Amino acid sequence: MKNILVLGAGLSSTSLIAYLLDHSTTLNWKVKVGDLSLEAAKEKIKNHPNGSAFQFDLSDSKQLAKEIANVDVVISMLPAFMHPVVAKECVNQGKHMVTASYVSDTMKSLDAEAKAKGISLLNEFGLDPGIDHMSAMKTIDEIKSMGGKMLGFMSNTGGLVAPEYDNNPWNYKFTWNPRNVVLAGQGVAQYQEMGQVKFIPYHRLYSRAFTVKVLDMGEFEVYPNRDSLKYKTIYSIENIPSIMRGTMRKKGYSKAWDVFVQLGATDDTYKIPDSENLTYRSFINSFLAYHSTQAVEDKLKQEIAIANDPKIFEKLKWLGIFEETKVGLPNASPAQIVQQILEKKWILDPNDKDMIIMQHQFDYELKGKKRKLPLHS
Amino acid sequence: MKNILVLGAGLSSTSLIAYLLDHSTTLNWKVKVGDLSLEAAKEKIKNHPNGSAFQFDLSDSKQLAKEIANVDVVISMLPAFMHPVVAKECVNQGKHMVTASYVSDTMKSLDAEAKAKGISLLNEFGLDPGIDHMSAMKTIDEIKSMGGKMLGFMSNTGGLVAPEYDNNPWNYKFTWNPRNVVLAGQGVAQYQEMGQVKFIPYHRLYSRAFTVKVLDMGEFEVYPNRDSLKYKTIYSIENIPSIMRGTMRKKGYSKAWDVFVQLGATDDTYKIPDSENLTYRSFINSFLAYHSTQAVEDKLKQEIAIANDPKIFEKLKWLGIFEETKVGLPNASPAQIVQQILEKKWILDPNDKDMIIMQHQFDYELKGKKRKLPLHS
Repeated sequence: MKNILVLGAGLSSTSLIAYLLDHSTTLNWKVKVGDLSLEAAKEKIKNHPNGSAFQFDLSDSKQLAKEIANVDVVISMLPAFMHPVVAKECVNQGKHMVTASYVSDTMKSLDAEAKAKGISLLNEFGLDPGIDHMSAMKTIDEIKSMGGKMLGFMSNTGGLVAPEYDNNPWNYKFTWNPRNVVLAGQGVAQYQEMGQVKFIPYHRLYSRAFTVKVLDMGEFEVYPNRDSLKYKTIYSIENIPSIMRGTMRKKGYSKAWDVFVQLGATDDTYKIPDSENLTYRSFINSFLAYHSTQAVEDKLKQEIAIANDPKIFEKLKWLGIFEETKVGLPNASPAQIVQQILEKKWILDPNDKDMIIMQHQFDYELKGKKRKLPLHS
Repeated sequence: MKNILVLGAGLSSTSLIAYLLDHSTTLNWKVKVGDLSLEAAKEKIKNHPNGSAFQFDLSDSKQLAKEIANVDVVISMLPAFMHPVVAKECVNQGKHMVTASYVSDTMKSLDAEAKAKGISLLNEFGLDPGIDHMSAMKTIDEIKSMGGKMLGFMSNTGGLVAPEYDNNPWNYKFTWNPRNVVLAGQGVAQYQEMGQVKFIPYHRLYSRAFTVKVLDMGEFEVYPNRDSLKYKTIYSIENIPSIMRGTMRKKGYSKAWDVFVQLGATDDTYKIPDSENLTYRSFINSFLAYHSTQAVEDKLKQEIAIANDPKIFEKLKWLGIFEETKVGLPNASPAQIVQQILEKKWILDPNDKDMIIMQHQFDYELKGKKRKLPLHS
């Protein structure tokens, strides 16, 4: 019998815990779930005979040590910044640990000791990061093992709403952390094309989005992620001439989103004075030059050229940004106000389904011939 | 007799020390100058009978205490981050202190104790900050004392090259810290117009520059500084409807500079891989999309619309950005490379003169009538 400890019973643990319990009888597993809220942990277990719930407090180091001592593997579904506390105790006791989060510097610093003890600290083990890495490496390794030489790698992923529930003008709903969607792309995007390193500043990222075709799903927009260059080392393809990882959206999204970026309305680095008393309309107006009579709509069209596109303008209007709705959020950054506006509109209804779209494209040379995978792309 | 201690004998101390020595006989002053380089301190004193030089090391707290004990006032011309060490000892010994730097939080925290001891910690006592504050407050206080009500305050300053030495296509030369010129405007500009708070993101700052007329000097361009709002409190004009502080440049500068901003070439937040082996041309190319045949010049004109303006394109070309000149700087940020390019061209020759231009505009209401100062603007 194997004992599995799951720490954290939030929303993103739901499918994991259900999966573990579903397989627990056949595979002889016991699943113990701990959360600050005993209620939440119990709710996930649903009285399954192989499951148990307990109240868990990360700040109680004795409890942490005791619970880890009793299991074979620990899965941390806690917020990412909490993983190191759990990881240190796992390494200490020689227990395996799994997370879905990016490898942090602290996690990396525990690597040598974990290896010496023969245990795994397995991270980036979700969808993105996770499935993306594993499926990419599978093909890269296959190409290499055939004696092929990698020429290009492009990998694009999008968390979208499933087509049958896609019923708003943006063709987008929040299927994950709204804050991350609002801040997406800030900083600089770095990638490589035909041996040339390329940089795209945030204010040009969305206007430079391009289109890719995905099987029979049609066309999607892609904009490059922040750092594609580091994957040359991580994927052991140091000499690859072209590499890019990107984010996918339905067509029409990027140009409309770019209006917020151009305005400066996605900035999260400062607070707006007296923000609670703004309205959505006066919020948008604060990014446009003063005019004694001209309407906000007209100023927007004049200052941000793309807002003149009727399809884009309709998307913006549908969000309610020209309405005198009170913001009500005190001490808010522009990004926080934009998030509030979007959260009222980009709602994933309880019966809606989301959709993940992920596409890898491989260019390589084999026996003197240039080839592509997938073959149809 | 008054004893004056000047700490720091760098470039910006030159005029100050000369001024103090020039007046030292009439006003009965002794001027002691300390610098890490005794040579530098001596050079500034030029054997003046009322001056003396000594080697000064800020990390030697005993020396600092001893030197401060012997004087009536301390002027710190050290780098701004070093002021607090000097200030603490001045407050400790009850000695006056003067700097030209912005009031830091540490400096502010010493205010109460300094006041209790009856000494002055006088900061922002240079040109900008300095003369700008003092001349603005003089007029604001006069307007208030007449019973006037402030309606608007705009203050613009530029460090430029004097007209008779203004002989390059940018009408600009480095007359102060080149790094600050390259990074100028980063963040968000905040100001207020007719009661409305306004924000301009960095990527729209230079395209939104506007023109002002200054006496018989003609027209200049102005872009708003980072935070004009805080001066409502500092200048005691909390209820003023319009306030803006800005930076002045010769006409044509802002639109041309905007090409670098639009490219993302002034970013100082990341390092370019293998930067030393780039050329100016490949550096510019790294911000433009890949193309197998199209020239960098044509791609620039295609991606950054304003670069199509022949006057702007000529300014860029004159800087040498399309040439295969090797960068040579290892581990450099884009901003550092731009600075290197400019430092070869925007050179203030030894016999060139700089020019400071500063203009305040006051709008106020007096006895039911709206008025302006200066009268001619």
